Amino acid sequence: MNSSKSFPVIDALQASNWSRSHFAALADAGVDAVHVTVAFWHDCMETLAKIGQWNRWFEQHQTLILPVRSADDIERAQQSGRTGIILGFQNSSPIEDDFALIEIFHQLGVRIMQLTYNNQNLLGTGCYEKSDAGLTKFGRIAIREMNRLGMIVDVSHTSERTCFDAIEHSTRPIAITHANPLSFRNVVRNKSDELLKALGASGGMLGFSLYPLHLANGSDCSLEEFCEMVVRTADLIGVEHLGLGTDLCLDWGSDYLEYMRGGTWDDQDASAVHWPAYPGWFRKPHDLHNVARGLQQAGFSQSDVALIMGGNWFRFFREGMRPAE
Amino acid sequence: MNSSKSFPVIDALQASNWSRSHFAALADAGVDAVHVTVAFWHDCMETLAKIGQWNRWFEQHQTLILPVRSADDIERAQQSGRTGIILGFQNSSPIEDDFALIEIFHQLGVRIMQLTYNNQNLLGTGCYEKSDAGLTKFGRIAIREMNRLGMIVDVSHTSERTCFDAIEHSTRPIAITHANPLSFRNVVRNKSDELLKALGASGGMLGFSLYPLHLANGSDCSLEEFCEMVVRTADLIGVEHLGLGTDLCLDWGSDYLEYMRGGTWDDQDASAVHWPAYPGWFRKPHDLHNVARGLQQAGFSQSDVALIMGGNWFRFFREGMRPAE
Repeated sequence: MNSSKSFPVIDALQASNWSRSHFAALADAGVDAVHVTVAFWHDCMETLAKIGQWNRWFEQHQTLILPVRSADDIERAQQSGRTGIILGFQNSSPIEDDFALIEIFHQLGVRIMQLTYNNQNLLGTGCYEKSDAGLTKFGRIAIREMNRLGMIVDVSHTSERTCFDAIEHSTRPIAITHANPLSFRNVVRNKSDELLKALGASGGMLGFSLYPLHLANGSDCSLEEFCEMVVRTADLIGVEHLGLGTDLCLDWGSDYLEYMRGGTWDDQDASAVHWPAYPGWFRKPHDLHNVARGLQQAGFSQSDVALIMGGNWFRFFREGMRPAE
Repeated sequence: MNSSKSFPVIDALQASNWSRSHFAALADAGVDAVHVTVAFWHDCMETLAKIGQWNRWFEQHQTLILPVRSADDIERAQQSGRTGIILGFQNSSPIEDDFALIEIFHQLGVRIMQLTYNNQNLLGTGCYEKSDAGLTKFGRIAIREMNRLGMIVDVSHTSERTCFDAIEHSTRPIAITHANPLSFRNVVRNKSDELLKALGASGGMLGFSLYPLHLANGSDCSLEEFCEMVVRTADLIGVEHLGLGTDLCLDWGSDYLEYMRGGTWDDQDASAVHWPAYPGWFRKPHDLHNVARGLQQAGFSQSDVALIMGGNWFRFFREGMRPAE
């Protein structure tokens, strides 16, 4: 993906229906670390069961994957040709209303938590709500605890105001692990230039999404269009704040998409739910090579391509996963 | 309390540390129905255990109390000299994020649910949050389900905007079971005149609180001051929308007050938490007789006193607990 392989290749969000074949595909593609989604709407007990499943996978598939608790583990993965797995939540539902569960989940290896997933929750407002109150009382307290532990604050599915509030309240840089600029496609999941500038100015990171609904022209988005958008974003906030968070979700049925979108309560029409097709040039981990090639063709230097493909995330995770002093 | 006893006497909120002696005191005072708090921050499992406890109490103390599932049960209680117990939640935490749990808890006898308790939750904003987004997507869906079932929407601890939103979205009148006008004491738990007028205009009910922090002059509030406030509120929204929700909380330690206020996450200083003293003229259920006397001395007719002491709540519960047609 980059000939020197000086930096690890990192995908800051994949949420597939995991099995050994996916782990083999990641290792084969040369992906050194991937942030995986443990919880969408899951409560504490459900999440503990999911982490238990990951513990079994780490044991069963140890020739392919290993758990990432610090950046050292990403280097270990790179050196041994495996993929480091960063456990993360796309929602704060696992901590329910209990402050103490943040540290408990950190002890269990969770290193990234998104404050909200689409809807309002106890920490803040999600991007699909009609009105936006920003970070709640509990949200401010939770961020302080995440800062202390070295659990990264993710705001990908979070409302604009909650994103700004999180940047302001967090004493450490935060991440949008998987989203694109609103100027690329005007959907609530993408982010305004003002927000992206504030993110970059605070030392934060943006992971570009390849989920079709976040792309100009959806499934028909060309590699060139995507890479030109990366160029424009580098001009806007600086290449050092950019990475990938592909949002690659493989092998789920439409029932799981319905669950991801609506949880246990939304009243959308399930028959209308279907997975969009990823662009032809990005349908599997190995296609990250296409992205790297496209970035170089769009004018990025080889070293900048390496930064976008994982070097920036590596630096960010190395700092962000350290406990506060 | 009223000589004819044509209407039941109803207290629309008590949250004591219940035991047989409290049930005996209610029956002895001639209280025909009381809305009790099953859950403050409790999740589904914790709440099921609490309902299980109530089921045992209904069996053990059946000469004193009975469960209220409809207004007929309040009349049964009145006729047999017992106290009907209306099970209610002060928070939506028991339904977690699961729409289907609303009907489940209705089947188990819960007839009142407050949308939020002080803080932001999945349904709406609480009265202690800094910013106020009103009712959430889930909140609108939950109210629709409560309307269908005949579960009463309570907004006592809810933010101003969420109260207005609930009045607008609910197809049936809603309740503020325990609060006072903001003009009586300017605290976030009390309600603005604009909100009270909207509540009354929509057929809703206000239960006056006797919790000291909701009273002018706190523990030193006189019976006359309290009753004059009732007169002013009757002038504002009509006597037919008024009742009592005393918020009488007996026999809890300061640890439980800390839990009620902060749940499992707030970072307030526990050493600063203590129960305020109720006014000398209202310290036990029997003191409702003092309130009835005070209302008459403040100029209410005997029939209006009977309406405020329970007749209005009886009418409201008779309609509100009926399933939608």
